[in-house]
Amino acid sequence: MKFVIQRDYLVRSVQDVMKAISSRTTIPILTGIKIVATEQGVTLTGSDSDISIESFIPVEEEDKVIVEILEPGSIVLPARFFGEIVKKLPKETVEIEVQNQFLTIIRSGKAEFNLNGLDAEEYPRLPQIEEENVFKIPTDLLKTIIRQTVFAVSTSETRPILTGVNWKVENNELICIATDSHRLALRKAKIETESEVFYNVVIPGKSLNELSKILDDTTELVDIVITENQILFKTKHLLFFSRLLEGNYPETSRLIPEDSKTDVIVNAKEFFQAIDRASLLAREGRNNVVKLSTLQDGVIEISSNSPEIGKVIEEIQSESVTGEELKISFSAKYMMEALKALEGTEIKISFTGAMRPFLIRPINDESMLQLILPVRTY
Amino acid sequence: MKFVIQRDYLVRSVQDVMKAISSRTTIPILTGIKIVATEQGVTLTGSDSDISIESFIPVEEEDKVIVEILEPGSIVLPARFFGEIVKKLPKETVEIEVQNQFLTIIRSGKAEFNLNGLDAEEYPRLPQIEEENVFKIPTDLLKTIIRQTVFAVSTSETRPILTGVNWKVENNELICIATDSHRLALRKAKIETESEVFYNVVIPGKSLNELSKILDDTTELVDIVITENQILFKTKHLLFFSRLLEGNYPETSRLIPEDSKTDVIVNAKEFFQAIDRASLLAREGRNNVVKLSTLQDGVIEISSNSPEIGKVIEEIQSESVTGEELKISFSAKYMMEALKALEGTEIKISFTGAMRPFLIRPINDESMLQLILPVRTY
Repeated sequence: MKFVIQRDYLVRSVQDVMKAISSRTTIPILTGIKIVATEQGVTLTGSDSDISIESFIPVEEEDKVIVEILEPGSIVLPARFFGEIVKKLPKETVEIEVQNQFLTIIRSGKAEFNLNGLDAEEYPRLPQIEEENVFKIPTDLLKTIIRQTVFAVSTSETRPILTGVNWKVENNELICIATDSHRLALRKAKIETESEVFYNVVIPGKSLNELSKILDDTTELVDIVITENQILFKTKHLLFFSRLLEGNYPETSRLIPEDSKTDVIVNAKEFFQAIDRASLLAREGRNNVVKLSTLQDGVIEISSNSPEIGKVIEEIQSESVTGEELKISFSAKYMMEALKALEGTEIKISFTGAMRPFLIRPINDESMLQLILPVRTY
Repeated sequence: MKFVIQRDYLVRSVQDVMKAISSRTTIPILTGIKIVATEQGVTLTGSDSDISIESFIPVEEEDKVIVEILEPGSIVLPARFFGEIVKKLPKETVEIEVQNQFLTIIRSGKAEFNLNGLDAEEYPRLPQIEEENVFKIPTDLLKTIIRQTVFAVSTSETRPILTGVNWKVENNELICIATDSHRLALRKAKIETESEVFYNVVIPGKSLNELSKILDDTTELVDIVITENQILFKTKHLLFFSRLLEGNYPETSRLIPEDSKTDVIVNAKEFFQAIDRASLLAREGRNNVVKLSTLQDGVIEISSNSPEIGKVIEEIQSESVTGEELKISFSAKYMMEALKALEGTEIKISFTGAMRPFLIRPINDESMLQLILPVRTY
């Protein structure tokens, strides 16, 4: 294998596939990046066997030569060293050449690295996916959907299925749900598809976080293919594979209350900042709990008390409070994460009493909601 | 105690005095910030008993009212909570009022915090320093001097005196020296003084690092006062006290070779980048060693070898190589830190053989030098 490549393209591709590589893998060859050079271009692959990322650098793009293939071939190079080396090379082009015994020479300007590589034939095969039923989402919307749900997955392995996000596809709509059993995030979005498709799968939260990091903020469509145990996201030069979680995701629709007893509409930013301040003293304690009470004339009071340190109390003028009076306690962390996930300047919080889960939604937007279980203190 | 203060001034002062406060102190009251309000203004103090920082906020500055003192007094408030609270207060002004039992009310807009304070009478007294002999250095020069020397102090407590920087004042000149016995940094600077002063003290590296963080990049003069066991740095509204290290600093002048056998002049940036690349593979090993060899026609070769991973070799065209041929090995880390500390685009490296310490200096600047002991590999 021998080729000359524009350094910037190589750096970008290496950074992308590195997202899949873990230094703690038990399969030594997976600490490496697989490099395959063909007449069409260079393909880099990284994998931790849960996530696999393939990045393709074409020989030419928009009439600009990016790679000059001198001899097709393949090699696996140690990812961390290769990544650091390409970032620090002195010139704009890099020559990579495999010699005997997988010894690989990396040249740029007057700098020459010899790296001991491994046989690419030993690298595990990526899943083969039949692209029968593809649906499409714009890249920026996909990133938003991930951001609005993935934070709510469970970090505990007690119920492994809750460490993933439930994706349901039906009636040309994608419904994404994440819950750790103390709070729940839900986001719906229209999808583009040629034939009607039905899916109900659970994607590991970690996979979605890594995917989000390597996607650009463009409106270009991402192709999504789902099989029995894999999901594939395809962009122009990138393939992102993730395994799916096995098992049935709990039915969450009955958790979401349909009516409410107290509705509060507040400015999202003011409310967020008041919660943030109230939680300053509460963070020390185990549960970071703040209290919300409705007062007269649409005023709500946010407070918190940490006996040893002190207490905090703040009044906020809401847009409106309708329904019954209410005193309720909840996790400031969950509330702040829910508010960060939602869009819109005004939000509506719908309570069904101090002991029941409550809903947070942007006003006039049915596509997203956040649900939080209160904490019993009164 | 009761006063109303501009939040931004309070935030800045709290951040400054927090630099002295350690959460791991064995003296509970030192986890707090002492606040003293007088008719002249508000003084904040933080201390870990090695370093003490006092920040003064005047009642008025440039005809702008900053503090309105309603009742003079004092209190000690828990530093971390107080710091987080003032940063997140909703309005531009803050009211702070001490009530019975040191309970302190912090009000801003409709947010009200109650913090349990401590009696300011219990707070340790700062050292009393007679300001007899003061010398002065511009703030930006002081920061540069610290940056160019403090990184070379020892991090090991085997020889505690080496964890400090040796400051010698004589003939209206300040000489700063730091060494961890593997490398040495030296910087000289003219000082301003009214009467001739002589000092030879050792300042803890940690103190200088913290001092550097709270100094602005201005040309205003810093007053420096040295006593038997304390040093005081004074700026307009800030007092920074540090204890001095006890013991005699080793005599280092005989370490610095006076003649050389091989002199190399190189572009500092090119040389730094080549060392950085050569060390990429060496970082894995214990000692991060790179080799330098002089070749023909002013070319020098930088190389490194890590048998399991691979090797790297790079040629650099120097400005000039004079004297004997040389092969020498040294720590890439020490060389990169020395190069970062020096100013100037071209540097001169003066070797006295492969086993002797060598000097790195900017060309045409006698005020600073870096010395590194080589590593025995040939």
